[in-house]
Order: sequence, then structure tokens, then C-alpha cells
Amino acid sequence: MEKKIVVLPGDGIGKEVVDEGIKVLDTVAELFGHQFKYEEDVIGGAALDQFGIPLREETLEKCQQADAVLLGAVGGPKWDTLPGHLRPEKALLGLRKGLGLFANLRPVEVFGPVVESSTLKREVVEGVDVLVVRELTGGIYFGLKDRGEYDSGEAWAKDECIYSVEEVRRIAKVAFEAARGRRKKVTSVDKANVLETSRLWREVIQEVHQEYPDIELEHMLVDNAAMQLVRQPKQFDVLVTENMFGDILSDEASVLAGSIGLMPSASLADAGGLGMYEPVHGTAPDIAGQGKANPLATILSCAMLLRYSFGLEQEADVIETAVKSALEQGWRTPDLVLSQDDPKSVLGTTEITNKIIEYI
Amino acid sequence: MEKKIVVLPGDGIGKEVVDEGIKVLDTVAELFGHQFKYEEDVIGGAALDQFGIPLREETLEKCQQADAVLLGAVGGPKWDTLPGHLRPEKALLGLRKGLGLFANLRPVEVFGPVVESSTLKREVVEGVDVLVVRELTGGIYFGLKDRGEYDSGEAWAKDECIYSVEEVRRIAKVAFEAARGRRKKVTSVDKANVLETSRLWREVIQEVHQEYPDIELEHMLVDNAAMQLVRQPKQFDVLVTENMFGDILSDEASVLAGSIGLMPSASLADAGGLGMYEPVHGTAPDIAGQGKANPLATILSCAMLLRYSFGLEQEADVIETAVKSALEQGWRTPDLVLSQDDPKSVLGTTEITNKIIEYI
Ligand SMILES: CC(C)[C@H](C(=O)O)[C@@H](O)C(=O)O
Ligand SMILES: CC(C)[C@H](C(=O)O)[C@@H](O)C(=O)O
Repeated sequence: MEKKIVVLPGDGIGKEVVDEGIKVLDTVAELFGHQFKYEEDVIGGAALDQFGIPLREETLEKCQQADAVLLGAVGGPKWDTLPGHLRPEKALLGLRKGLGLFANLRPVEVFGPVVESSTLKREVVEGVDVLVVRELTGGIYFGLKDRGEYDSGEAWAKDECIYSVEEVRRIAKVAFEAARGRRKKVTSVDKANVLETSRLWREVIQEVHQEYPDIELEHMLVDNAAMQLVRQPKQFDVLVTENMFGDILSDEASVLAGSIGLMPSASLADAGGLGMYEPVHGTAPDIAGQGKANPLATILSCAMLLRYSFGLEQEADVIETAVKSALEQGWRTPDLVLSQDDPKSVLGTTEITNKIIEYI
Repeated sequence: MEKKIVVLPGDGIGKEVVDEGIKVLDTVAELFGHQFKYEEDVIGGAALDQFGIPLREETLEKCQQADAVLLGAVGGPKWDTLPGHLRPEKALLGLRKGLGLFANLRPVEVFGPVVESSTLKREVVEGVDVLVVRELTGGIYFGLKDRGEYDSGEAWAKDECIYSVEEVRRIAKVAFEAARGRRKKVTSVDKANVLETSRLWREVIQEVHQEYPDIELEHMLVDNAAMQLVRQPKQFDVLVTENMFGDILSDEASVLAGSIGLMPSASLADAGGLGMYEPVHGTAPDIAGQGKANPLATILSCAMLLRYSFGLEQEADVIETAVKSALEQGWRTPDLVLSQDDPKSVLGTTEITNKIIEYI
């Protein structure tokens, strides 16, 4: 198989972790006889520094012509005081919208060996396996933004949250399809007792559910979901929700897994098509360039890339198994270390990747 | 002191817990020589059943003329399928808006004796003492709601989120003032990297902060806050945020305290004025009428009522100390019980109230 991958390291530790991801992809390619070609480009703060904008039109076009996009992370204190349209994060939003990546998948799987690094009790998180499906190109993120003044002279700001039936329908399908390959339960999270968009959301979810009679559907209000995620996380299989709620709940859910350094993500357009893959963590400016960053979330994102954009299920499994083996054998990056751990088993960014490549 | 309190039991366990709150208020009144007069009224599902609407105009007027409102809880499966404007929850929203209760205070204090009932590790939650200050009458809750169709015939739904400078300013003041009486730190939570209302929010918070140079101010994005609340909750003192984020984060924060059955709340209009006090928990239809409901959140809400609406600091302290003593002595309601607890110390709704009255 020959495929083209656009690589967008971004800022901070982005480059370090993305480099390790590529090593792992190359290992798998050699083993299974594939050819992956990489094209690198700058986005975020790096693009602001070089070109004065966070995302260039030609970068977007390059991505549109690729088979997949591998992204590191964007942002950093250096660019934090820029006005809204010149923030590094705009690159992310621009890529999501420009590539039509409406479905964000964030699996939260609690790996046995690192269960102790969670702030939750072992019995609460052990065995947790939730897939958060977040709508990624609609809602309040992309609605009209405005400022104005009342007649009294008082200033106001406004954000509009809009959802169309079709926007909800397609993300609902992604959730129900995903549940079919899992434990067959979907929890749809909304605020239908207050929001009109949530009432539409609930109606459409219910309608799409008709096509999936084998899947159990449950509705949950977002405030309750925020509570249940840390009270009884094992009740969840697939959790589907709109953009803003998904942003909040998926970050909250990452705590279950102990370290955000283990959390991969996939952002997908229509089934089987182009996807963008990135670790959930940020640019971690405090440890950038020190060789300490945890590359596992990126490596697991590469597994998702192989599975969702290239249909290479077996290759994806091999990577995931290798990561689990490395953790089981006691190998850790600094962010995963507990005080009682053996310091000999703590590895840097490149060293732990080499371990994983050994296991592959 | 002579005061008038409107009592709105609402639905489910609402009546049971409110009755216990009144007993405690009366005990304190007798002890300190005050006179509290109560006027009861129906809201929520009960009002729907009797009058066909969740909140009557005359109920609102009664509250406007009172010194404080004590509320149980509203809602239940019986009314869950009614259209939006006939949902029991509309009573709550109507009271908040109608009484101008823009500041919702939800203290999350982890009581030592029940620390084990939290799903978080003891060392993470022990000593947590956060005050969540939620804006309660603005934002997406009260913005325009609409439905329509695109030219293509596709249906959409919309919610508008609006904040004015003054709406942010007054809640900011509440947060900074509260911090002065505490550990002098305010964390303001927004999504300023995406939302226009959040950017206004941040500007106004910063401006108001000029008047409070003794208070440390920190801004945090809502996704990060959802994570930090369960990762390192002790970093928070006062957490202030807008309506929707506050709904989500305050429910999430309740998990820190073990049981939502211990969480009181106050909803305030301008300083020293009318306030509405209620437990954070809901109507718990599954245990209603069985004498098992935990009245402690309501009793602690009564303490807040005395403190915030009547300025009776000492009386409030007496109640809070009595609740702590009862818990320290090992008394529990069923929701607080751990398997290793002594079953003899498990009390019903009325019995635990009597214990607290003893301690007062
Ligand atoms: C950086 C930010 C705009 C982004 C979001 O809010 O979607 C991030 O938090 C995420 O979840 O990917
Ligand atoms: C019942 C509902 C409308 C309400 C809210 O969302 O504000 C509740 O969740 C709360 O937090 O008091």
C-alpha cells in the first residue's frame, strides 16, 4: 500500500513526539510491505513566526490531497496575547473545518499497568474503556460571533450555537457504528432541559437510533454526565456529544487514564476518508526540547491513523499491543512515574519509542 | 429578628428534606430569639399537576416579598415528556430570572469523616475547599432560542449566548469579595480561545480585578478546568464561571465531596438581599417517601440562608458545626454509607435531623 501523510509538528513538544510517531509508522511499513510518504509543513505558532498567519491556504490544500494528517500540538505562551484570529489554535479550527473533520474520536482506555497514576481509586477506573465521540465542526465553536452595545451604551458579546439535522445525523451514525464494534451502548449527552439545539440533537439521535435496534441508547444531561464520568465511568461505552460539551467531557475523561500523555485522537471526515490524528495533550512548553516528552499518545494516534484512514486493522493492533507490552514490562516516561517506581525503568522520548519498536 | 421565608418543597424528596430544614431553622430561631414565618407554595411538577403550569405568577410575587426562599427540588419522570415550556425545570429558571438571582454559590468542602465515600483518592480530596461561583441568569440559558430551515429545506436549531459587561462585572465582584474572606485566590474559567463571550468575560474579570489587588487571579480554559478539578482540586479556592460552564463544573465538583447529598447552594440577588437556598441534588424519585433521603444538603443550605440573607453568621456556624459533629460521631444516611461502616450508625431523614438538633 502506498500512502501520503502530511506531517504537522506544530509547536513545543509537537516535533519531538511526531518524529517518534513516524519512526513507528516506518517500522510497521517495512514489516508489512507498505510505503508511506511524508510531507512536512508548519502550522500554529511556528507558522505565525514564519508567515504571520497560523494556517496557510497551501497547507490546507496539501492536507486535502493527502491520505492522512499527523499533527503534534499547537500553541504556547509566546503567542497567547495575539488577537483571536491570530491565535495558534486557529490553525486547528481551520484544519477541522477546512477538511470537514466532523467526527472526533477519543478513546479512553485505562491501561492496567498505569492504573495507579490516576487520581481516582483503582476499583473505579480499572477496566474503563470509553470512546468519546465529539462533534467537531458545528455548534458554538463555528457559529456567528459578535460584539455590540445596548441603547444604554453597555457593551455585549455574543456567540451563536447552531446545529442542523444533518450535522447531528452524521455524528450519530459514527457513534452507533462504533458501538457495533464494541459493547453496543451509546450514551448521548445534551442539555435538552434548557437548550433548543439539544432538543434537536435528542430528536435526531432518537431517529437515527431506529436504524440501530441492536444498540442500547441512553440520554444523559451534560451536568450529570460530568458527574457520572468520575463517579461510575464503567457505565459508559460510547459517549456521543456536541462540540463544546465534547471538549469539556473528553478532557475530564482523560483523567481516568492517569496521564493525558497516553490519549490519542482521530478527527474524521466521511467514513474511510481523510483523517487527522493527534495526541490530546498540548505543547508542554515547560519540557519542550528536553527529550522527556511522552510520545505514546502520538504513537497510539498513528495506530488510529492506520486503522481509520488506511483500513490497516492488523498493523494498528501491532502498535497498540507493543505499547501495552512496554507498559506492562514497566517502562515509563517521566509523566507516568509514581514515587515508588524503579527509576531505572524511566525512559526518554526516543528510548521508549525504541522499546516499542523492539516489541513490534 | 423577624423574617419571612417562602418554602417551595417541589417534587420527590423535596418535601421530606425541606421539612427537616425548617425544624433546624426553628431550633436555631428559638435558641437565638428570632421569629421565622413560613409560607409554603407549590412549584414544578406539583404545580403542573394542580395548576397546569410549573410556576405561577403569584408564587413569584410571594417570593419577591419574602426575605428568603427555601427550595427542595423539582422534576421527575412523570413530567419528563412535556414540551419545553411545561417542564418542571422551567420553575427554577423562572425563579432565578424573576428574582434576579444572578449569583449561584456552591461550596464544595470535603468533610473529613466522609472522605472515603469519594471515588477519588483520599490524598487528592482531603482538605478540598472550593467555592464555585456560577453566573445564573445570563448566557446560553436565557439567550434567544430558535428553529428554522435552510433554503435546502434542512431544519436547524439555535441558541444564543450573550453576556453584557455589567452581567460579568457583578458576578466578578461576588467572586472577588468571597475570595477576600477565604484564601484570596480566584480562578476564572472561560473558553477565551474560541468564544467571543469568553473574551469579554476575561476582559471584564481583569478590569474588576484592579479593584482587588490583594486577590490572586488566574484564568483557566474550561476543558483544562474540567481536568484540573479531578486532578488537583486543592489548587482551587474560588472558581468563577458563566452559567453553562458552571452547571457542568459544579456538578463535577460535587463528586469530590463524596455525596451530592451534602452539597448546599445559595442563589443571590444583590448583596445582602433576597436569596434562594436549595440542595444541589435532585428529586430522587426512586427513594421519595421512604424516609431515607439525606437532609444534610438542605440543612446546610439553611445555614447559608441565615448567613447570606439574614446576616446571621453565628447561627449559620452553629448549624454547620452540628452537621460536622454528627458526621464525626459516625452518623450517616444511606447514601453516605460504605460497606465497612457500622449499620447501627445509619439513620433516616428525620433521625439524622434529630441528631443534628441535639448537637445544636
Ligand atoms: C485548542 C482548542 C481550540 C481545542 C478545542 O477546544 O477544540 C482543544 O481544546 C481540543 O480539544 O482539541
Ligand atoms: C434543572 C436545571 C435547569 C438546572 C440547571 O441547569 O441550571 C440544574 O441542573 C441546576 O444546576 O440547578
